[in-house]
Amino acid sequence: MTVGIVGLGLIGGSMAKGIKARTSHTVYGIDISSETMLLARICGAIDGSLDENTMAECDLFLLALRPGAAVEWVRANAKKISPKATLVDLCGVKRSVCSELAPIAAEHGFQYIGGHPMAGREVGGFVNSRTDLFDGASMILTPDARTSPGLLETLKNFFLDIGFGQITYTTPEEHDRIIALTSQLAHIVSNAYVKSPEAQKRRGFSAGSFKDLTRVARLDEDMWTELFVANADNLTQQLEFLINSLGEYLDALRAGDAERLRELLRDGRLKKASAGGD
Amino acid sequence: MTVGIVGLGLIGGSMAKGIKARTSHTVYGIDISSETMLLARICGAIDGSLDENTMAECDLFLLALRPGAAVEWVRANAKKISPKATLVDLCGVKRSVCSELAPIAAEHGFQYIGGHPMAGREVGGFVNSRTDLFDGASMILTPDARTSPGLLETLKNFFLDIGFGQITYTTPEEHDRIIALTSQLAHIVSNAYVKSPEAQKRRGFSAGSFKDLTRVARLDEDMWTELFVANADNLTQQLEFLINSLGEYLDALRAGDAERLRELLRDGRLKKASAGGD
Repeated sequence: MTVGIVGLGLIGGSMAKGIKARTSHTVYGIDISSETMLLARICGAIDGSLDENTMAECDLFLLALRPGAAVEWVRANAKKISPKATLVDLCGVKRSVCSELAPIAAEHGFQYIGGHPMAGREVGGFVNSRTDLFDGASMILTPDARTSPGLLETLKNFFLDIGFGQITYTTPEEHDRIIALTSQLAHIVSNAYVKSPEAQKRRGFSAGSFKDLTRVARLDEDMWTELFVANADNLTQQLEFLINSLGEYLDALRAGDAERLRELLRDGRLKKASAGGD
Repeated sequence: MTVGIVGLGLIGGSMAKGIKARTSHTVYGIDISSETMLLARICGAIDGSLDENTMAECDLFLLALRPGAAVEWVRANAKKISPKATLVDLCGVKRSVCSELAPIAAEHGFQYIGGHPMAGREVGGFVNSRTDLFDGASMILTPDARTSPGLLETLKNFFLDIGFGQITYTTPEEHDRIIALTSQLAHIVSNAYVKSPEAQKRRGFSAGSFKDLTRVARLDEDMWTELFVANADNLTQQLEFLINSLGEYLDALRAGDAERLRELLRDGRLKKASAGGD
């Protein structure tokens, strides 16, 4: 198979490295940074540049750009994509991206499926990309009425080959609703948590919990702003829910109501037990 | 040195195991569970039971009980503690415990210093205790005007010997203020975070961030309620601050104000950078 990767940042770069290290597929890549292109060539993450000629050869396109740029790229390049090719975007929001890309794909005759690899690092860019970034992770796909079962099987095997542990099929709507909690809200809480003045005095005063709570506070604000705005309805709902929940603990603390506090903590412990560990 | 350990749960049990594995000190221990006492004897974590006779031999007492029980134990046993001995409590709050224990120690002539080992696990009890629990961790001590420099040196070496990476000296007031953020608030946020209905549907939809945010949601509600109530003033302040911070993101999201959102995220990223990684 010949794979074209658009965007060689953390996700696109890791895809390229994983494919080259673990399969015999050919990889063409493109990135706006010429330094990244050079690095990707030197370290063997790509076989060559994704240009007008190589694009025509590609069976699979992986779109590892931010939502706005991803849609823009497809609009500009749809004509060069073979009707036999499949395009998978890897954006962190699915409703807005799928609703833009699906009609373009239908119009030009190529296959399109939304995707979202459940892996990341708190540092970005090609220099931080890793062959094993997706090892054991879940690859989310959002097939629709146009998707053939054969294509799903091909994609499943492709992603499992490069290290993913499982494929999760869902709709763009369900994806955006759950991801608002499991990823987006975590980034906001982490980012807000570290703003307490005491955070600057924490050296020597923390075991693992401060570290865990603030690990993803170091984020790319441009990318996350775009993702948050595109999922504002779901994220607002999750954030309201959390603020309300925290308010219950606050009320119990202010009232010195130990019984109520214990009840709130017990409820959380039981919900954690049924939600599972990761 | 002969060390008496009161309470052989996760912390006391790990202290006992660490001392026996890494030093030549004698350890006597006591726990309300006869099963724990048997286990501790069988696995060599203690040399014998801490009773009236062995108490008289102890140079150092480590009090690994919850705050209320710790104070109660010292009140009941102060007469049996040698005036040459030192007592260190390992409770997670320091103002309430130190203010109770320091006068008792002064009255009976033994030394007392508040302590708090910055290590833990999301599971408790002797069965989960580990020789290496404190490896590289910070041991917080709250010396006061009665504390001799010689004693501090002895304690420092003792804790470093069993695996701690550093000793952090502070006051009970500063301890309680910072720990409200670095440990207590983290447990509340984690516990509240998992209450969203979407948390039960998160399988396949999470990378590391959901896991990190909810790791400590599985907590012992009896112990944490006691710790939270004893530090309610500081914890209330931290919780109010966080709820206010989260409210700023919520306002920006509701207003669709991408610029404001980006600014909030940027501020958090910079604060995380200066607060450091753990």
